[in-house]
Amino acid sequence: MDEAAFALRNATVAIVGLGLMGGSLALALRAKNACAKIIAIERDADTRAHARARGVVDQASADLALAAAADVIILATPVRVILEQLPRVGAVARAHAIVMDLGSTKRQITQALDALPTPLQAIGAHPLCGKETAGFAAADANLFRAAAFVLTPLARTTPQTLAFAQTLAEILGARPVILAAARHDQIVAAISHLPFALAATLMTTAADRARGDDMLFALAASGFRDTSRLAASDTPMMLDTLLTNRENVVDSLRTYSRQLGALADALARGDETTLRAALEMAAEKRRGMFT
Amino acid sequence: MDEAAFALRNATVAIVGLGLMGGSLALALRAKNACAKIIAIERDADTRAHARARGVVDQASADLALAAAADVIILATPVRVILEQLPRVGAVARAHAIVMDLGSTKRQITQALDALPTPLQAIGAHPLCGKETAGFAAADANLFRAAAFVLTPLARTTPQTLAFAQTLAEILGARPVILAAARHDQIVAAISHLPFALAATLMTTAADRARGDDMLFALAASGFRDTSRLAASDTPMMLDTLLTNRENVVDSLRTYSRQLGALADALARGDETTLRAALEMAAEKRRGMFT
Repeated sequence: MDEAAFALRNATVAIVGLGLMGGSLALALRAKNACAKIIAIERDADTRAHARARGVVDQASADLALAAAADVIILATPVRVILEQLPRVGAVARAHAIVMDLGSTKRQITQALDALPTPLQAIGAHPLCGKETAGFAAADANLFRAAAFVLTPLARTTPQTLAFAQTLAEILGARPVILAAARHDQIVAAISHLPFALAATLMTTAADRARGDDMLFALAASGFRDTSRLAASDTPMMLDTLLTNRENVVDSLRTYSRQLGALADALARGDETTLRAALEMAAEKRRGMFT
Repeated sequence: MDEAAFALRNATVAIVGLGLMGGSLALALRAKNACAKIIAIERDADTRAHARARGVVDQASADLALAAAADVIILATPVRVILEQLPRVGAVARAHAIVMDLGSTKRQITQALDALPTPLQAIGAHPLCGKETAGFAAADANLFRAAAFVLTPLARTTPQTLAFAQTLAEILGARPVILAAARHDQIVAAISHLPFALAATLMTTAADRARGDDMLFALAASGFRDTSRLAASDTPMMLDTLLTNRENVVDSLRTYSRQLGALADALARGDETTLRAALEMAAEKRRGMFT
């Protein structure tokens, strides 16, 4: 066991938000017996009771003040909630506690982490996994398995804290990847936020086309199911994600719209050569992934 | 056993094109021992040899003239190939043979079916299933299970032929759905061709954004995987599909572009109310499907 794993083994971990991410984290830490104690800060009383009854957490409260008892504080709420909670965490946390978040955009959060009182250790994180079902009921100890676990260290992040975060990711079965916050936000705009916006808009267009025609949705098959899956994502979480990565997402959407428009134009004029080249490039690129 | 199942049981079935669809049809008919003999018309010599060696078909040839020996002729090639093959099938088929196709658009094919010599029976079909892997190697006897199997009868289609097609769909484990060809083509433009175009364009945009940055594709997770899956579809098949349903697909793409533009505009101006309403509507609609 390395130093970081040992430190975690003896640590009290506070998880803020027992949703899909935070709940899965609690389940995984418990399953691996990776830390001494798990505290949950969760506003929903049913979730708190449920998590305690299942033995997933040792203590639970709606009050962020409980974070004062923790060596490691991990915020797993939507991005704008994290931004609001961080100063309050900073006000109650122990002098040398590690503060980490799992928010899906990182630039604004990195700034908020940087504003924490200096004795605190701070690092941003974003595990690139999820499902379209939100909440503790959907939590899964294996959620992080084989996922990329992006870490966005600050200038003030010590090598010990970074090593700790890497070890945490590995204990969860994930693959730690160190990235600058700005680069992270650009990349996820294209690979995560854009696909979400496409799926949501697909539902909008399909609903428009289905007006008075139940047959349309009745005939939708696996292709539609997969392409539209992300549309079912948790709206509050996605709103926070999009609004805190606005420039990158708008930029991706504009580029996408231009490219979709070019495809529509080629089809409209029956330009088979252009169409074939675009579709072949896309097919080749896609077949080279996930194999 | 109803009359139609009995007729199939004693029939020689010719399948034109042993790709994913035709190959799966051959496998399913053989597995159920649903017909007396299966003939394949397939241009690829390896596929013919492979299908014969596995006992999936009894006879195979590259020559469409072999269809003369069949009671039922089912065309499972891409749409424009079907359009080219139908008159040739009409020239060689037995007087009262049933001619059916599995093409993914139906208006142009219905016209071509209607031009067949009158003693022939004719009906269009489109099983709404598939995978992004093409070819006989990907064929699967269970491909049609639980899928909608659209039937587009012509004015000349007899009740017996329609009953036969319905029974065939049921034998494959599919759910027969009778639709007018024009309505079919409008619906699939929204639920199948639009999602394909979105997935392909997602790959184009991601490749554009990834330029010189391998990290982007390395971080793509399940959301990207599902949203982009259809981009790997067989290009020749999809080209034929899009080009024979051009007006409907262009129309769907234009509507989609407008709606995506409206989403981008709302995000760009930070209009949370509009954004929330759009995302909630999409999420609710999507959660109501596939449950």
